[in-house]
Amino acid sequence: MDRKQFRDLADPDVAREKIASLDLTPDPETVPLRQARGRVLADRLDADLDVPGFDRASVDGYALKAADTFGANEADPVELTRIGQIHAGAEPAVEVENGECVEISTGAVLPPGADAVVMVERTDAGDSGDTVLVRTSLAPGDRVMFAGADIAAGERALGPGTVVTAREVGLLSAIGVDEVPVRGVPTVGIVSTGDELVRPGQPLDSDAGQIYDVNSYTTATAVEEAGGEAKLYPHAGDDYGAMESALRTAAEECDLVLSSGSTSASAVDVIYRVVEETGELLLHGVAVKPGKPMLVGELAGSAYVGLPGYPVSALTIFRAFVAPAIRRAAGRPEPETATVEGRMAIRERYSEGRLRYMPAGMVTDGDGETLVYPVDKGSGATTSLVEADGIVSVPPDVEYLDEGEPVEVTLFSGDVRPPTLFGAGEDDPALSRLLDRVERPRYLAVGSRQGRRRLRNGLTDVAVVTGDEGPSGVELGGWSREWGLVVPAGNPGDVDGLSALVDDDVRFVNRTADSGLRSTLSDALDELAAERGVDRRELTDAIDGFELAVRAHESPARKVLGSDAGAGLGLRATAESLGIGFVPCGTERVSVVGDADRVDKPGVRRLEAAIDEGADVFDRLAGYRG
Amino acid sequence: MDRKQFRDLADPDVAREKIASLDLTPDPETVPLRQARGRVLADRLDADLDVPGFDRASVDGYALKAADTFGANEADPVELTRIGQIHAGAEPAVEVENGECVEISTGAVLPPGADAVVMVERTDAGDSGDTVLVRTSLAPGDRVMFAGADIAAGERALGPGTVVTAREVGLLSAIGVDEVPVRGVPTVGIVSTGDELVRPGQPLDSDAGQIYDVNSYTTATAVEEAGGEAKLYPHAGDDYGAMESALRTAAEECDLVLSSGSTSASAVDVIYRVVEETGELLLHGVAVKPGKPMLVGELAGSAYVGLPGYPVSALTIFRAFVAPAIRRAAGRPEPETATVEGRMAIRERYSEGRLRYMPAGMVTDGDGETLVYPVDKGSGATTSLVEADGIVSVPPDVEYLDEGEPVEVTLFSGDVRPPTLFGAGEDDPALSRLLDRVERPRYLAVGSRQGRRRLRNGLTDVAVVTGDEGPSGVELGGWSREWGLVVPAGNPGDVDGLSALVDDDVRFVNRTADSGLRSTLSDALDELAAERGVDRRELTDAIDGFELAVRAHESPARKVLGSDAGAGLGLRATAESLGIGFVPCGTERVSVVGDADRVDKPGVRRLEAAIDEGADVFDRLAGYRG
Repeated sequence: MDRKQFRDLADPDVAREKIASLDLTPDPETVPLRQARGRVLADRLDADLDVPGFDRASVDGYALKAADTFGANEADPVELTRIGQIHAGAEPAVEVENGECVEISTGAVLPPGADAVVMVERTDAGDSGDTVLVRTSLAPGDRVMFAGADIAAGERALGPGTVVTAREVGLLSAIGVDEVPVRGVPTVGIVSTGDELVRPGQPLDSDAGQIYDVNSYTTATAVEEAGGEAKLYPHAGDDYGAMESALRTAAEECDLVLSSGSTSASAVDVIYRVVEETGELLLHGVAVKPGKPMLVGELAGSAYVGLPGYPVSALTIFRAFVAPAIRRAAGRPEPETATVEGRMAIRERYSEGRLRYMPAGMVTDGDGETLVYPVDKGSGATTSLVEADGIVSVPPDVEYLDEGEPVEVTLFSGDVRPPTLFGAGEDDPALSRLLDRVERPRYLAVGSRQGRRRLRNGLTDVAVVTGDEGPSGVELGGWSREWGLVVPAGNPGDVDGLSALVDDDVRFVNRTADSGLRSTLSDALDELAAERGVDRRELTDAIDGFELAVRAHESPARKVLGSDAGAGLGLRATAESLGIGFVPCGTERVSVVGDADRVDKPGVRRLEAAIDEGADVFDRLAGYRG
Repeated sequence: MDRKQFRDLADPDVAREKIASLDLTPDPETVPLRQARGRVLADRLDADLDVPGFDRASVDGYALKAADTFGANEADPVELTRIGQIHAGAEPAVEVENGECVEISTGAVLPPGADAVVMVERTDAGDSGDTVLVRTSLAPGDRVMFAGADIAAGERALGPGTVVTAREVGLLSAIGVDEVPVRGVPTVGIVSTGDELVRPGQPLDSDAGQIYDVNSYTTATAVEEAGGEAKLYPHAGDDYGAMESALRTAAEECDLVLSSGSTSASAVDVIYRVVEETGELLLHGVAVKPGKPMLVGELAGSAYVGLPGYPVSALTIFRAFVAPAIRRAAGRPEPETATVEGRMAIRERYSEGRLRYMPAGMVTDGDGETLVYPVDKGSGATTSLVEADGIVSVPPDVEYLDEGEPVEVTLFSGDVRPPTLFGAGEDDPALSRLLDRVERPRYLAVGSRQGRRRLRNGLTDVAVVTGDEGPSGVELGGWSREWGLVVPAGNPGDVDGLSALVDDDVRFVNRTADSGLRSTLSDALDELAAERGVDRRELTDAIDGFELAVRAHESPARKVLGSDAGAGLGLRATAESLGIGFVPCGTERVSVVGDADRVDKPGVRRLEAAIDEGADVFDRLAGYRG
């Protein structure tokens, strides 16, 4: 079908215009002042009373007629008769005549007849008990805040479009407004489709290819961040009846409907059909990467946008195209775009002829300059969501970004800051805990080999590696960990070491070649081969599953736990934490190696200190020694 | 009493230390993922499953054994037997043998036996219906995302202290976390005291000196902005029993208790007593302006801070001393302090020997430079809250800030931006409406005289003035308004013009001398005096209340409405909107005059356009003409 080929990709600006043409502005509403924080005023608010509502004493002292103090000074005070007292919140019971005064508290009503207040500090008690000596001369209005001096009835207090913060709440309180007319919050319905998706918290059948639904909650959260109210509809799976009914209900109940998630052509068909039956498809496909398969249309009177299925694509497209429309509908100002200038840390090629929103990470080098690198784990990786700090927009005609080329990163939000520490290397449970003591660390568990490479390339601050291979950097500290074979609890197969893998019928699970633990295993097999006087290859060929490699430190143990294997390469700490058996093979050293130019970065120093002070971490992990 | 004199003011840093020494950190809690937005992770979260949980096809195509495609290319494809189909979310029912392939959807489980996927675009249907021609050769792993490739069980997903945004929600969704361990939200009890305070929405008795309680809702909102939960206790008035009970209940229920509002010495006594009976007073009085009367202590096991009573002081002290403690207790990072460099627009003297947090406004001059001016309306003005953009910290030993001196403004929050238009002058209902069409305007209704002065001093962008007095700027537009005497509905006193004020027994209310309307009245009285051949002074002396001047355009009408006067100076528009009588005296011109260097500022241009297009505004206001 033509429509699924996205042959005529729209220009991104056209897509923005189409979305802007949709009406998703809700009706204004009224909320109590106490709940108005963050809301946007729908109308101008004028004061309809004077603040203060009366002529008010600004100090503790005596209310009097200014004319009575004419010529008074320290040397020659004037004596007035004290005829009463007025507290804040009380109606004056007296009127001041010539020669008289009234004791008055800050905030109290100026009594009739008085036109000024003298501070108590400029007075003394008179000789008789009921007189006061005033040691200064006053002008009418001194120390009085007149009615309406703060804001008067009829004056403009706040304009439409004002975002209500504590300050506006203060002014609204002062003028007695307790119901605030605000812009409505656009409701955004989120319909997720796709048989393979399961909502977080539900049981997952991985064997049947199920994965957790990432886009529903992520999009809902992003909707809230943009000032909308998100409404999640029950997951429709690939039940087309349910999907259609969810879409129609959402359109009825919401200002905007978003769908995302299905990679199934038939699900997309249902969406097309419902959009075409009840509204209009305005656009399908945008010339942007990621995010090509975006749909824009009207659905039963509501606005509709179909987001791409991959999480990074969905969030990128949402931010670039949908969030501005939600903010506009909510009356919220576009946030000041937070951008950071940096230089490309590596060369990045690209040649698809489409605008590219490249997710990018940032790292500060030894000179405090920002280096920028692409974060593209591809194929729907969700970790990219948190490993990137923002987006670099690469125009369609740019074929590559050179190493060192200046680029501008549009941060995901104004409060994004680059990590204080950027590391890569071995996946290690002690390291996970030590990183908890560093503020905003970023760590990629890509194995020792990749960790070394990234450090060498000047990308990372530190590498976490095993083995003696001279690291090209400064050793910041390290620890040792016991490694061996993880086996089912009780070791029912009586696996007694590496020999058993070679000689017995044990299904083994290895780690990937990038892993330092795999190198350690290789070294041990070299020794075993030497002992036996055979070629190493002979041994590895005899190990059932030697090439079955999994990524992370717990992965082999999980395979053993799941009865997919009889033994796996792993750590004593992992076996203990998962409650399975362990056959020790040796101890290996894990080192943290820093880029010589960046050892003074606060995050690097912090990690160094954390290793140094990490006895509690190492003590709590079986087989670890700091 | 010594303690009320605040003789020994603490250094601000000591105050910060004292507050930091209080424990207001609540217990961590667990929230559903859908409600985790903005919360702070209490613990590290490691993945406890692989994502994806299976080896997954990254494209639509055919799953096969890579070895079968060895040497295949466009010219010489290899033909494989298609033995089935696998959709996303389904468990593979077949195993791939040599020479076979399985049609597979993006996201589906790689079937046993297969080790790669070929994109559908690189294949053709074979000659027979059940074969596929593969036009490329593949390596094992091509177009496959292996189990755990995104994140693997045991890997560190997110660290403690991470603020949950859409991105983190995405990663947590992917690893199936639907209950998130987060830092608790510190609860902050707010106890307001003071007989004169009334909560917004309640009726106000101004004659008895009542004012609306500004601090309770403002502080509550500021608490929420800092990441706390605010709990308001019933207003205790000056009922000391109620006050004591509110304090004790708040201490029991909250992590921190704030009190504010009372200017009454006896109320402060109650607070002292309760603090001393149930806890400890750590500090009273801080050497900072505003905010000297701050109390810090412990109250029945909770932290306690007494804020000053004036709203600007209370919010300033809250922000400087209390908000950081709340953020720390909530685990929230200190926001990147948003500061703006500018130059003092005017000279500002100061010599109290205390650190001063000077509320400051900002305005951009014609060269795009930021000018900074103090906002200090004193004596508890609440309008200062919204008329300032941030704070300039002035050290104790600085006696003045010179005009042009560079200063740094710490913005109230990162999203504060200077107004696009800064004006001052006449209070006018048409202007109020025109300003609605300008984004972020700031306007001080200080009257024509003050408006002219501020324009002349280079402070404002525009002045809004009446009269012909040659304005020192560029006229941007204007309108005319009908003025006269506002009288009770039906004009029961048969007031027929200015003569009646002079000749009859009518109590009059004037506007202040800064008001342009007052100048217009003066001119008219000059004419009347000339007509009658008398001195102008003779006329004004004969007007009962000529010196009774109120500030804003509605104020005299309100006095008439409240039966405090028989006639007031005002506009036909005001009389109509308040439903009272009007005796016309003439028409005056209101002009908007711009600073010649700033007429190109977007906000100035916008106001100019709004006047130009303002027919609907002028038509809707009685007596107005654009």
